[in-house]
Amino acid sequence: MSSTGNRVRPVEEHQEAVRDLLARSLRPRVQGRGLTEAAGRILAEDITAPRSLPPFANSQMDGYAVHSADLAAAPAGSPVELKVAAPIPAGAQAPPLAAGTAAPIMTGAMLPDGADAVVPIERSEPDSFYAPQDRAGARVRLPAGVPAGEFVRAAGSDIPAGTPALAKGTRLGAAQLGLLAALGIAEVPVLAPVRVALLSTGDEVVEPGQDLAPGQIHDANTTLLAASLAEAGAEVIRSRILADSPADFRAALRDELDQGRADLVLTSGGISKGAYEVVRLALAAEGVQFFSVAMQPGGPQGLGAVDGVPLLGFPGNPVSALVSFEVFLRPALTALTGLPLPRRAVRAVLAEAADSPAGKLQVRRGRFREGRVELIGGPGSHLVHALAESNALVLIPAGTGHLPQGAEVTVWLLE
Amino acid sequence: MSSTGNRVRPVEEHQEAVRDLLARSLRPRVQGRGLTEAAGRILAEDITAPRSLPPFANSQMDGYAVHSADLAAAPAGSPVELKVAAPIPAGAQAPPLAAGTAAPIMTGAMLPDGADAVVPIERSEPDSFYAPQDRAGARVRLPAGVPAGEFVRAAGSDIPAGTPALAKGTRLGAAQLGLLAALGIAEVPVLAPVRVALLSTGDEVVEPGQDLAPGQIHDANTTLLAASLAEAGAEVIRSRILADSPADFRAALRDELDQGRADLVLTSGGISKGAYEVVRLALAAEGVQFFSVAMQPGGPQGLGAVDGVPLLGFPGNPVSALVSFEVFLRPALTALTGLPLPRRAVRAVLAEAADSPAGKLQVRRGRFREGRVELIGGPGSHLVHALAESNALVLIPAGTGHLPQGAEVTVWLLE
Repeated sequence: MSSTGNRVRPVEEHQEAVRDLLARSLRPRVQGRGLTEAAGRILAEDITAPRSLPPFANSQMDGYAVHSADLAAAPAGSPVELKVAAPIPAGAQAPPLAAGTAAPIMTGAMLPDGADAVVPIERSEPDSFYAPQDRAGARVRLPAGVPAGEFVRAAGSDIPAGTPALAKGTRLGAAQLGLLAALGIAEVPVLAPVRVALLSTGDEVVEPGQDLAPGQIHDANTTLLAASLAEAGAEVIRSRILADSPADFRAALRDELDQGRADLVLTSGGISKGAYEVVRLALAAEGVQFFSVAMQPGGPQGLGAVDGVPLLGFPGNPVSALVSFEVFLRPALTALTGLPLPRRAVRAVLAEAADSPAGKLQVRRGRFREGRVELIGGPGSHLVHALAESNALVLIPAGTGHLPQGAEVTVWLLE
Repeated sequence: MSSTGNRVRPVEEHQEAVRDLLARSLRPRVQGRGLTEAAGRILAEDITAPRSLPPFANSQMDGYAVHSADLAAAPAGSPVELKVAAPIPAGAQAPPLAAGTAAPIMTGAMLPDGADAVVPIERSEPDSFYAPQDRAGARVRLPAGVPAGEFVRAAGSDIPAGTPALAKGTRLGAAQLGLLAALGIAEVPVLAPVRVALLSTGDEVVEPGQDLAPGQIHDANTTLLAASLAEAGAEVIRSRILADSPADFRAALRDELDQGRADLVLTSGGISKGAYEVVRLALAAEGVQFFSVAMQPGGPQGLGAVDGVPLLGFPGNPVSALVSFEVFLRPALTALTGLPLPRRAVRAVLAEAADSPAGKLQVRRGRFREGRVELIGGPGSHLVHALAESNALVLIPAGTGHLPQGAEVTVWLLE
């Protein structure tokens, strides 16, 4: 069957159907990427530390590397005088430290063999380093009773070699990329972005930048959905406006699918119950189903697969298309790929009364600020200026009807 | 003076100094960009609607366009029978509608001259459209008393031509780009990204992917800061690891500046009080100042300008570099360019006790979940694995000292 007739489908049921379809038909692809290109992507495999961090014991302070035993013997409060050894150069193997000596060491420099503690320069006497020409035969007075390990960053104290560093599924932000760099890893396996072919329909629709004839409008959906997909970590491989006949639509879709690059087809427009619904007419015979979902806007929805590639059909009004993306596709991508991060949902107080249609989830647009949400524009699905002034979607659940001013609602923050 | 000696600078004072320096020396550049490339960028000029949205009165439903006066005369409850006119094609100028007739119209199609209301198909009798072959002489029964304007989207009801559409400074997300597309605007003026030259220093530092000799570590800062800058909407035009001498550092910096592309220079490492601090030694004579800021980690900070290009010097430990970015540079970029969006600050309950150094803002790393924050790793600035496991920075204000388990703190969410 290509249609479910007049039954209205609950939102949750359609959300699950979208998630199931994508889970069945989206094959995750793994790519190796350099750290810069991996930013914001999802790690495709567990990463084990190939070396310890720090890779060697090093100093946490500018000061003197010492044998703590040399400072243990003296009574508390009475300093110990040690011979100043050669300074430890950064970035090189330090020579072993002879007992009874103290080596100038800078933060991060390798602790020499034998040394097990660092005395900060400000606790030393003199409290600044000797100039090279004064170093011969120089001595330094250091406090007694410095414990072993003091101001030493032990090898592996951040992470030991061979232990888990980052789990598969981790989103690679600055900190995670910094860790990979610190571990010496220059390339990582990440999930490839989901590749989406975006097909807008409508005989009246014209590209932005072109002139309008009477009765025509500029296409907002391609831009809006392409930006939403890109923000969500997907890749729009192709976007086209298709007018013409169902046969032409089918031919253009097949042509797209024959290239074998699309993981997902997303259409907008042409799926409601009007007389000239090109997507519906073209795809009903291909086994794509068309539903009335209990949501306003965004009620008409198409779902199926063509030649094994999953296809979602969104309605043609810009607000309907955005709401469809946020309610159905975005959470499904999050569940399957870990990207994008879920929208932040918060409770808010309605700044004004609202009426919602019986039995439908109404998704209004609003401006959220400090726990309150003001509705922007009416429920009309063509109000794209109102949408652009909003920073939140306001969810008024099915079965709510009238909500007084001051009622609590859930809002999804869009920024 | 090239240094402020031993005075410890309050965090707020240094934040203001960074903001002031950038405000004085960063010149905002404006670029024209197509809608796809403009995603996530900041609008550089106010945009006025060049046309109304909708551009023409159109139908909100699939149904019949009518003269409401034709349906006003009949008594309520008794339907009116009208002659069916030719259907209105989408995307074309509709011919005027004769009084006493009703024209089949689809959602979004242009209302014909004379028509001022739409009756949805499901309230009509018959409640589906006539097939073309049955249309000759066809009649339709419609309910009486349909008010003018019913199910009509008036021209300009979303936004009238000539009125403000988007304000300068708006971040262009999917909804805003959708509005621009709907208005027919294909290219917009946006702020160019701030171009940053990123210079890491350290004789011990080696690029990820290269082998380590004893005493060497892999450079995490370049990756970490480059990813942070990119996430914040800036553009890293060049990143280099510089070891060598202060003279070589100065020469490399001049070489970079001579190319005239950097809006900002960001260095990491080489600015504390050790004996071999290359950035400090190289730039003190250039008028760059070096401070001890009352913050842990990230205390050492450099600030100034070289050849009129602002320069920030961050410390060399990865965690210090990230904290410096989050506390100083990120908020300054937000204040000046509108990008990135500010970090979300929330109050959280400490899952464990914490001690902070007297007189310093301590910035710990933590994992925030449902109002609680667990500290990850100790205060050590080398703990990059702990950083990578965190999703929040935990702010323990100067003068706090000991905080018991259950104390409330402010955290900045990193994701």
